Amino acid sequence: MTRSELFEQIQRKQSFLCVGLDADPKKRPAHLNGDVLAFNKAFIDATRDLCVAYKPNTAFYEALGLDGMRILRDTIAYIGNEHFIIADAKRGDIGNTSRYYASFAFNTLGADAITVAPYMGADSVEPFLEYDGKWTILLALTSNKGSQDFQPASQDGGQPLYAKVMQRAAEWGSPDQLMYVCGATKAEKFAELRSLTPDHFFLVPGIGAQGGDLEGVCKHGMNDHCGLIVNSSRGILYASDGEDFTQAAQASAKALQEKMAAALKKYLP
Amino acid sequence: MTRSELFEQIQRKQSFLCVGLDADPKKRPAHLNGDVLAFNKAFIDATRDLCVAYKPNTAFYEALGLDGMRILRDTIAYIGNEHFIIADAKRGDIGNTSRYYASFAFNTLGADAITVAPYMGADSVEPFLEYDGKWTILLALTSNKGSQDFQPASQDGGQPLYAKVMQRAAEWGSPDQLMYVCGATKAEKFAELRSLTPDHFFLVPGIGAQGGDLEGVCKHGMNDHCGLIVNSSRGILYASDGEDFTQAAQASAKALQEKMAAALKKYLP
Repeated sequence: MTRSELFEQIQRKQSFLCVGLDADPKKRPAHLNGDVLAFNKAFIDATRDLCVAYKPNTAFYEALGLDGMRILRDTIAYIGNEHFIIADAKRGDIGNTSRYYASFAFNTLGADAITVAPYMGADSVEPFLEYDGKWTILLALTSNKGSQDFQPASQDGGQPLYAKVMQRAAEWGSPDQLMYVCGATKAEKFAELRSLTPDHFFLVPGIGAQGGDLEGVCKHGMNDHCGLIVNSSRGILYASDGEDFTQAAQASAKALQEKMAAALKKYLP
Repeated sequence: MTRSELFEQIQRKQSFLCVGLDADPKKRPAHLNGDVLAFNKAFIDATRDLCVAYKPNTAFYEALGLDGMRILRDTIAYIGNEHFIIADAKRGDIGNTSRYYASFAFNTLGADAITVAPYMGADSVEPFLEYDGKWTILLALTSNKGSQDFQPASQDGGQPLYAKVMQRAAEWGSPDQLMYVCGATKAEKFAELRSLTPDHFFLVPGIGAQGGDLEGVCKHGMNDHCGLIVNSSRGILYASDGEDFTQAAQASAKALQEKMAAALKKYLP
């Protein structure tokens, strides 16, 4: 999916919602008897029209055992070609090895994008960027507590690590093939993040079920192609753990989509 | 495997060799018709007495398709309990998610250790450390070209990123559960790395087939439990791509083991 096609979808659906498909074994509805593919299909049917992207995290599929990746591949096939599908895998290794991770995500699983960790530098990221029509989503500023351990420290007396990662990587990949994971506890931070890489999309985690910070993130982070994909996993996926889980998920996704429609009207240049 | 048990093995075998099991699809001997498990078994039988550890890189098993992890699990089972088995996976995610990666590596695959990327900080690493009797091997200073992009930069005017990672992580995990990936183009660098964390084991990649830097690494990096596991993948695995590949691998591993025996005699305190 190209950047223009993604933007076209965002405008048509009035949504830049990404739905996390992290089927936590501890939280799946009991009445499905552990059938993850059935859970995913029902869940996808309920949210398909309200989101532009799905993001399965590979860890939850590894947790299903040796057949987990088959379930993930079947889930991705079920989603189809109209959504932007992100394998949230946070991979990264020396070049020769990253090449195999890329092939697995893009060819075997059929994802459009994969999340990648930047610690090992350019030659660990570039093999992912070599795939025509596929996307690399690089960790920049994450939203977990541990993000404060290394990411904000000034580098050689200059910019923080996350900023250096963003600007260096912008030399490796254009806005048509590279995005960044950008979380933030304060929405104002997005003004700085946006100034670092004006044209790249950000994948934004950590927006709660209520979409609390959503407007602030849009105010400071939106660009002329929207430039934001905002993820919600648990807030939608576990809106209910009963037999009404699809209705609850749909209602929760709908509430976020409506906030997004309002934000697009207000902030899209 | 405990640190004492690992050290006992090192002394008994006079080896701290780790053999990489990265069965590159492009380089497997033709006469095996792509049977990776058969290749691995023959290769393990040929090297078992000469090494203390095996390190399969998960990317190469993902490259085998949806059944790749089954081949990896069967390979690990074939190795058995006498070797230290490292799932080289370079994982790392928010706490809840890292927990599933840990379970997959330790429970589903049966590995003793997993390699982990530090970018996301403490809460992305700690779930791996919670497994009794299992090991976390954290990326510190890697040996690829891209390691120079972010790892050596001074943090907030102080130590380089790799050193900060090592010292912060030493607060999270003891030398009985945490190791570091430490590569270096110059062996003298190991004096600095060793001073940062005197008691932790280092997993050392990037020693060539000829073992060129091995003596220097030992001179500067060895501690009273040896403290070094030195990996060789391609130099042993692809010593020959013909029907004599087991003999060639064994000869190559034997040459490294003999250098290691000499280094233990010379440098073990």
